[in-house]
Amino acid sequence: MASFFSYNMIMQSNYQQLALELHHKLKGKITSQSKLEVKTEDELGLVYTPGVSAVSKLLAEKPKLAAEYTIKHNTVAVISDGSAVLGLGNIGPMGALPVMEGKAMLFSQLAGLNSFPIVLDTQDTDEIVKTIINIAPAFSAINLEDIQAPKCFEIEKRLQKELNIAVVHDDQHATAIVVLAGLINALKVVSKSAQNCKVVLLGAGAAGIGVASLLAEYGFGDIIVVDSQGILSTARNDLNSIKQSLLGITNSQDQHGSLKDALKNSDIFIGLSSGGKLPAELIKTMNPDSIVFALANPEPEILLSEATLAGAAVVASGRSDFVNQINNVLVFPGLFKGLIENKVVEVSAKIKMNAAMALAAVVKQPTAEKIIPSVFDPAVVEAIAKSVT
Amino acid sequence: MASFFSYNMIMQSNYQQLALELHHKLKGKITSQSKLEVKTEDELGLVYTPGVSAVSKLLAEKPKLAAEYTIKHNTVAVISDGSAVLGLGNIGPMGALPVMEGKAMLFSQLAGLNSFPIVLDTQDTDEIVKTIINIAPAFSAINLEDIQAPKCFEIEKRLQKELNIAVVHDDQHATAIVVLAGLINALKVVSKSAQNCKVVLLGAGAAGIGVASLLAEYGFGDIIVVDSQGILSTARNDLNSIKQSLLGITNSQDQHGSLKDALKNSDIFIGLSSGGKLPAELIKTMNPDSIVFALANPEPEILLSEATLAGAAVVASGRSDFVNQINNVLVFPGLFKGLIENKVVEVSAKIKMNAAMALAAVVKQPTAEKIIPSVFDPAVVEAIAKSVT
Repeated sequence: MASFFSYNMIMQSNYQQLALELHHKLKGKITSQSKLEVKTEDELGLVYTPGVSAVSKLLAEKPKLAAEYTIKHNTVAVISDGSAVLGLGNIGPMGALPVMEGKAMLFSQLAGLNSFPIVLDTQDTDEIVKTIINIAPAFSAINLEDIQAPKCFEIEKRLQKELNIAVVHDDQHATAIVVLAGLINALKVVSKSAQNCKVVLLGAGAAGIGVASLLAEYGFGDIIVVDSQGILSTARNDLNSIKQSLLGITNSQDQHGSLKDALKNSDIFIGLSSGGKLPAELIKTMNPDSIVFALANPEPEILLSEATLAGAAVVASGRSDFVNQINNVLVFPGLFKGLIENKVVEVSAKIKMNAAMALAAVVKQPTAEKIIPSVFDPAVVEAIAKSVT
Repeated sequence: MASFFSYNMIMQSNYQQLALELHHKLKGKITSQSKLEVKTEDELGLVYTPGVSAVSKLLAEKPKLAAEYTIKHNTVAVISDGSAVLGLGNIGPMGALPVMEGKAMLFSQLAGLNSFPIVLDTQDTDEIVKTIINIAPAFSAINLEDIQAPKCFEIEKRLQKELNIAVVHDDQHATAIVVLAGLINALKVVSKSAQNCKVVLLGAGAAGIGVASLLAEYGFGDIIVVDSQGILSTARNDLNSIKQSLLGITNSQDQHGSLKDALKNSDIFIGLSSGGKLPAELIKTMNPDSIVFALANPEPEILLSEATLAGAAVVASGRSDFVNQINNVLVFPGLFKGLIENKVVEVSAKIKMNAAMALAAVVKQPTAEKIIPSVFDPAVVEAIAKSVT
């Protein structure tokens, strides 16, 4: 594939075009491989009939042994209904497929796990739950991905109750872990403590809600969550039950108003919106040494260069083509590896905080340009996997 | 894996034990692999966010292009509910998993297709249909496997109606093709013509019904189907609708009775039973130059050595540890490759007959010991794939 990467692509205006060409050339980013090349009738008779019947009989009697004899050992299903893909919104299963394939690819390459993408031809909560329960037996863990809030919370909770494998809506949990890891190091750079910081979080979808919950648990001074209608406060009568539950752990002063009101004298902006924007002039109303994470995908809430010009001390985005990529790729391979290897089924707040601290610690001396390690740093997957106990 | 294959395993009494050890060592016979090792942030930005969003947008607008940009290009789902696994019966999804993995492995190695095994935690017809429809978007074809008759027929038919990809219950179709191919060459060995032959078929499950239909279509003189209760005839009042429909194309004399009655003066025995037996003395009541295919798995209806001793001129089994393996491995890799490459959705009788003739023709000079090519003959997959048009 060398020809695709002989450019300095960041300098190219046709980045999207290159991605289209690459996908068209590959026709699928992952492939299934036999672990063993079967070369003789004898070998065939061991992996297939008649030998395989001994394994079938054993697993019919003792289904729990499947993890020791089959792909159930270490296989992650990456499942989406296409209802909230990247920042593109509800674009359906085929729109979701290239993203799920990308995740499966990264599970394989970075964590040595098997991974299959499954995209669903239904967006009905009950049907999604039933379908996933029905296909679950061969999998070691389920990565729910890019499913709209608030139904993603119900789907995750119901599956966690029904299945005895880890079920993780990655947009919530992995994003929360990598954001917290980035903030831990960004705070070191600007010499502030979490307890004294006011965080403004734009976006109350799955990722926003997951991040707000984890930051509250970690002990940030205050967190103001803003959605497309303004600050989440008791003045709002349009909040769904999930957003309402955030009121108990955020906005301690019950501040009302808009993003502009929220940002005044804040220390940290985190954008996890779908198409939201952060006007540069609002950064000037934040406290000195402000931290701006503009994580919307594929278009961040503000260009990092503009944020820096407006006075932000540490900036980060969700994209791989800028510095400080706050990307859940830093988390999900190691998190799932750790969950599967340690047979942990529940991703508790403690697991998430430990993972964030482990990830942050991979960067020995954080600077404004490097608050988070590279996705390709081999220490990342191991650090996170080991933190899961 | 050399250590596993340093024995002459057929000579070993612990064949089953070796299969268990091999599966325990492999912990999954297939693995997902990234087609491209992602090494830089730029590359990551093409296969994942932000570049992948261009592909997502394209496929959201034009879902049909998914086959050109994703694994939908050539990916087979191998799906079972574990209700009729090999000859072991209803042993559930975990019992089925090693077999489905084995098929996925062979699709990968022999036909270069991607393949994922899916085992279902439901045996309800409606739920199976709904679940498969819901997970279908990423797949190019669906291989239903080891699902009990008669529900397998309804499931296959309903899915064929709902999905615009090939849906093939392999036990019926691939088995029918390989049995017909074997018979075409066996008839050459004994110099008989199909038109003049009486076939006795023991077993009226999915495979038996598929074989009976194809042999009738091909023009065999007469076909007598026998299940555990005896010959399928108008004297039977316990036949389900599928078995009843066989009466129109088999047993032209409306013969009644048992397997023993059926075999008298017959030319060909085909065993596709679940635990059925063919007593050696009955072979002596067949016409001279009889053909015996004892295909039950893992235990054939009669040992081939006994069948030969009793006078059978050509013998075959479903096992890889004897001569003349009538195994659907000979068919499914090439059949699915042909269906996917030619975008053929329906496996018609014509496609099956063409495939059988193509497979038979791979053996240039059939003998009693070689009526069917080896699974490892590279001409097999190509011959069958090319026959699908």
